[in-house]
Amino acid sequence: MIKVNENYNKLQASYLFADIAQRVETFQVENPDQKIIKLGIGDVTKPLPDACVKAFHEGVDEMSVEETFRGYGPSPGYPFIREIISKEDFQKRGADISPDEVFVSDGSKCDTANFQELFDNDIKIAIPDPVYPVYLDSNVMAGRTGHFEDGRYKGIHYLECTKANNFLPEIPEEKLDLIYLCFPNNPIGTTASKSYLKQWVDYARDNKALILFDAAYEAFIRDDSPHSIFEIEGAREVAVEFRSFSKTAGFTGTRCATTIVPKECMIYNNKNEKISLHQLWSRRQSTKFNGVSYPVQKAAAAVYSEQGQKETKALIDYYLENADIVTKAMDSLGFDYVGGGSSPYIWVDGGERDSWEFFQLLLSKAAVVCTPGAGFGKCGDKYIRISAFNSHENVIEAMNRMKEIL
Amino acid sequence: MIKVNENYNKLQASYLFADIAQRVETFQVENPDQKIIKLGIGDVTKPLPDACVKAFHEGVDEMSVEETFRGYGPSPGYPFIREIISKEDFQKRGADISPDEVFVSDGSKCDTANFQELFDNDIKIAIPDPVYPVYLDSNVMAGRTGHFEDGRYKGIHYLECTKANNFLPEIPEEKLDLIYLCFPNNPIGTTASKSYLKQWVDYARDNKALILFDAAYEAFIRDDSPHSIFEIEGAREVAVEFRSFSKTAGFTGTRCATTIVPKECMIYNNKNEKISLHQLWSRRQSTKFNGVSYPVQKAAAAVYSEQGQKETKALIDYYLENADIVTKAMDSLGFDYVGGGSSPYIWVDGGERDSWEFFQLLLSKAAVVCTPGAGFGKCGDKYIRISAFNSHENVIEAMNRMKEIL
Repeated sequence: MIKVNENYNKLQASYLFADIAQRVETFQVENPDQKIIKLGIGDVTKPLPDACVKAFHEGVDEMSVEETFRGYGPSPGYPFIREIISKEDFQKRGADISPDEVFVSDGSKCDTANFQELFDNDIKIAIPDPVYPVYLDSNVMAGRTGHFEDGRYKGIHYLECTKANNFLPEIPEEKLDLIYLCFPNNPIGTTASKSYLKQWVDYARDNKALILFDAAYEAFIRDDSPHSIFEIEGAREVAVEFRSFSKTAGFTGTRCATTIVPKECMIYNNKNEKISLHQLWSRRQSTKFNGVSYPVQKAAAAVYSEQGQKETKALIDYYLENADIVTKAMDSLGFDYVGGGSSPYIWVDGGERDSWEFFQLLLSKAAVVCTPGAGFGKCGDKYIRISAFNSHENVIEAMNRMKEIL
Repeated sequence: MIKVNENYNKLQASYLFADIAQRVETFQVENPDQKIIKLGIGDVTKPLPDACVKAFHEGVDEMSVEETFRGYGPSPGYPFIREIISKEDFQKRGADISPDEVFVSDGSKCDTANFQELFDNDIKIAIPDPVYPVYLDSNVMAGRTGHFEDGRYKGIHYLECTKANNFLPEIPEEKLDLIYLCFPNNPIGTTASKSYLKQWVDYARDNKALILFDAAYEAFIRDDSPHSIFEIEGAREVAVEFRSFSKTAGFTGTRCATTIVPKECMIYNNKNEKISLHQLWSRRQSTKFNGVSYPVQKAAAAVYSEQGQKETKALIDYYLENADIVTKAMDSLGFDYVGGGSSPYIWVDGGERDSWEFFQLLLSKAAVVCTPGAGFGKCGDKYIRISAFNSHENVIEAMNRMKEIL
């Protein structure tokens, strides 16, 4: 008899964003004339930069003639993109990452979800609360947690991000093995300083732990926070980094990302011998993945051209202006919040309101969609996340509607 | 301390095709003037059909302006492609598959590798020998096998494909839970009749087992074999099917495939209650995958246009003519073989030669690359796989070189 992986049973209800989409759809059916403004899911709205479009077309043209056609590419990505990423995203910032440490993929969601496969099931895992749900769910599905009780999975060490710690979790006193971090943070929108990240790197080195660092929003940084964990001394030994073109260049529907696995990064077998994480991930990817569409890799590499850099900066500035509009509105409404500034997300304290109640109020009275903080974890119970990914016009309109009802 | 998933340790050396690539590279470095002809890895060589190129460009153009730009798409694919696949690939053949049973992905390699995640670790698995290495390796990595001994992993039930059974494995007498099948077969090139597949469907129904059916090469069928397992009565209850645009339309470097999970397909929890496999796969994909690049989905859907159908048929006919050239050469050389005809692969009996020896002979004396059968399993020890994916000119030249040295 074919039996199910019982761990799936532990997962809570449906995936957060699918759940929200369902509620929004129901509202729209009941209110067909209402123009809903979506500041919920972190999806970009501006088109691809011209530099990327041009390269994308060129890639398609190459696929149309025998002389330049490309079949299976190298599973970790073409040298041309791995080289430019190594140079522009790392070497230029003094982070020593070589091209063959860059693995190109179809998305950071897949990579952050798949990476846990490399580890033993008995490791101790630290995951922030609130958090992007994928880190947690992928470990639940793999059987690394107990059941869900009182808003939390048994067996996970939650790194609480609250007002009390300025939304930067304290370095744990106990020994943990795998630590997920995300800066600029999703959903909170906070950045992390070099000195703060250095404490995590030191902790990981002291405890033979590994940091999985999600830098999907690094392009939004406008303060002096590091853009990569590899700007921190010693990080090459204890960290893996996930980066994405999704938010940097509007690739959410185009699909391209990278995962950086330094060759110094070692994990341990049950004889306490060192195992190369780089080799493990290479093996995982060459067995279970077949590379990213060639024209998409061409389009992504164009982000690093002079024109591409100018256009992606303008794109992000546009969203950051939206973030300013939101934070100003929150100021005038007297709400407490963090985020914006160096992030497309604003994390708003709902005060007495529970987060789904706040979500439902904004949807039903203002036809504005945000994300209820509870969907990201117990520490989000009283918060909502407002996303700056929309047009200026829509963000201004949404803030005006909120001012009318709150 | 961060510990490794010890199951990776059980994997044999490197991935087959990476291993071959290494040997070929070494030969080329030592013989820089030799023109190597590659009939090894099953990669297409002809460019994308014009219909697909046109739609691909249109998709890119849509991404370049705000009005038609697309961010995150539905994780299982856009309705336009799911609908046309349901209609053209299934309904037209009398196979009742609805659009929401079609999951679009970036490749059958990923899907066949990932699907095992849905199952308990203690199920009994049947895998053909020889076989596409991914079915086996993904289960090894998940811990469903013992160690590798004498050419085989402990705990796997191997379905032997040999001359004695006409390369069609017998239906097992014992109860097995998960059965991998692939027709037209990779690497053997054989097809399966309706009556043969009906025996497997009946077996699965009788034993509450599940069939994972890889139909990546269905477009090559020129005899009256079914193109889908869902042409078999009862299969909706016990089968999942993997299909791909890779070989059908030259998408190996463009990346698009589909997995079909019927809603009647049930698996069991430890209370023997039925669980919907469709819901499980939806949950897996929405948690760990973010959909296929929109322009790629547009390009893939164009395969079903009138022009697309004509062009893809011509593409496959071209490769099948190559297969004819190979089988005729094998006839004249007096080699025993199967495949070709309704498959791009020819499985050649090397006689007294061991398969790596035969591979090395062809590489070193004729600069022709094939795939050693041993890489696909113990039953391939005396065989090589010759692929028809190349130009007529190269295939003819390769056969002439083989005739000279054999």
